[in-house]
Amino acid sequence: MARLNVAQTAELLLSQDNILILCHRYPDGDTVGSAFALCRALRSVGKRANVMCGDIFPAKFGFLFADLAPDTLREKFIVAVDVADTSLLGVLEKDYGSKVDLCIDHHSSNHLYAKNTLLDDTASATGEVIYDLLAPLGAELTPSIALSLYTAISTDTGCFRYTNVTSRTHRITADLLDVGIDSHEVNRTMFDTKSPARLQLEKEMLESMSYRMNGKVLMMTLSEDMMLRSGACEGDIDGLSAIPRSIEGVGIGIILREVSGGYKISVRTNRGFNACEICKLFGGGGHAAAAGCFIKGTLEEAKDRLLDAIGEMYPEED
Amino acid sequence: MARLNVAQTAELLLSQDNILILCHRYPDGDTVGSAFALCRALRSVGKRANVMCGDIFPAKFGFLFADLAPDTLREKFIVAVDVADTSLLGVLEKDYGSKVDLCIDHHSSNHLYAKNTLLDDTASATGEVIYDLLAPLGAELTPSIALSLYTAISTDTGCFRYTNVTSRTHRITADLLDVGIDSHEVNRTMFDTKSPARLQLEKEMLESMSYRMNGKVLMMTLSEDMMLRSGACEGDIDGLSAIPRSIEGVGIGIILREVSGGYKISVRTNRGFNACEICKLFGGGGHAAAAGCFIKGTLEEAKDRLLDAIGEMYPEED
Repeated sequence: MARLNVAQTAELLLSQDNILILCHRYPDGDTVGSAFALCRALRSVGKRANVMCGDIFPAKFGFLFADLAPDTLREKFIVAVDVADTSLLGVLEKDYGSKVDLCIDHHSSNHLYAKNTLLDDTASATGEVIYDLLAPLGAELTPSIALSLYTAISTDTGCFRYTNVTSRTHRITADLLDVGIDSHEVNRTMFDTKSPARLQLEKEMLESMSYRMNGKVLMMTLSEDMMLRSGACEGDIDGLSAIPRSIEGVGIGIILREVSGGYKISVRTNRGFNACEICKLFGGGGHAAAAGCFIKGTLEEAKDRLLDAIGEMYPEED
Repeated sequence: MARLNVAQTAELLLSQDNILILCHRYPDGDTVGSAFALCRALRSVGKRANVMCGDIFPAKFGFLFADLAPDTLREKFIVAVDVADTSLLGVLEKDYGSKVDLCIDHHSSNHLYAKNTLLDDTASATGEVIYDLLAPLGAELTPSIALSLYTAISTDTGCFRYTNVTSRTHRITADLLDVGIDSHEVNRTMFDTKSPARLQLEKEMLESMSYRMNGKVLMMTLSEDMMLRSGACEGDIDGLSAIPRSIEGVGIGIILREVSGGYKISVRTNRGFNACEICKLFGGGGHAAAAGCFIKGTLEEAKDRLLDAIGEMYPEED
């Protein structure tokens, strides 16, 4: 369970061959982009390398590996990228969970489960860490690698919006653009494309919206019927809970999602309101700006209980 | 009508005083951010400077100038920033249109109407050009100036998404972050905040959606009633026309906006479909991916005429 620096990590990788790179389940742009960037870099310096994931890669990531031939590896050296814990390996955990030779990650919550770990929690994305490895590996920054790393960084920063972005993030991105990649097309695919099911879900969610307490609270509902009618899958509901809070004047945005026996409540707040304090009253928790809880009963009961609690915590001024 | 380079522009500004900086009408983040960055830079090197705009600044830009004392200037030297043409000065055109001593801009369409012009159409935003001026002006990059320039660049690139972004854009942004600004809060204010009227408009627009031609075409309507019911103003409809095209599988996204005597048609297309060719058939025009036209008559008539035209241009395969 050694912590390695960038130079040591490159040295370790260069001493190995047949390198199998694992992504985390529910694969996102950072794990996929980082994995294929590393795979291409290793192949470019003469290694055999391949990528594997417990879940199927969403079609939108296809451009990252469509041209890459698979390879069958023997006596593998196992590298996990962007995988903070072995449980995130999904169906691969059984075979590989205890056999990860090297983990490359940026999550401060990383469990240090691997034999060796390169962890940089100041990086906005694991993609930044892979970028640092290129020079010591002796790998050139090719357009394909730059495209993968751009995808990793852009998706993990919400297109340079989140608090994890640093000046280093922008400097690395500048280097990636210098080799000539179509960053606009990446962002269009990652951020400006919705499924018809998601659009249908948004429509029905907007129809359910109700402002309460003089517009301070905005509630929206996501029922099992809506999920069925729209044909939405779990991936389609990503980010929906951010919608109510984003409306001007709203302090507390709430999504009530129907689940068995009651409602899963997602609370997002702006300054002056504490989502965690609200959810704690119902046995939930989270952060000041984003928290969750479960409330038993009908939709109306759940709404009433929430509004009573909020009314007491944040009484109306006359 | 001289074209100046950065050094000449700085020299000219340093030879003047009482510098009045003008923004364009319908002020956006680039014109406002650039103007206040330049104003602060000039004041920091001992000049009297002020900012003026023909329209009231939207409240969301308040953080860029709330702490800045106004100044009454005499015998003014007039500088227009991000103003491609004098008509964009709005109500200020009458007084200042023919008196602009210096224009600083990045629009290739700039009419070169000013006595002197610093024009860099490779810059993603006028904010990049103002950044270049800081060192030759002898002005320090303070957090307030960095915040203004970040706002200029981030808004004019759609948060680093558009095709105008270059590696230089990211390198300048890295320098801006290095002085310590809350870029996350800027982006939250600029991109993740919607008015209740806009939300209501989106809801009604989604209710009007209809897929046609096996989902290849997605149409949405924006009626005068919807505008009235929602209380939306023109600013609230920005970006609505991008919604239908963003849905997976849609080749042609169309917004039909009710206006006097007919419908203003906005067409946005993905690869394989040409918005301009479609709109040309109705006397309109634009670009391959974004074009517009006007069609007389009722909503149903406008829809039918569009679908007939599209069906002929892009016949269904069996």
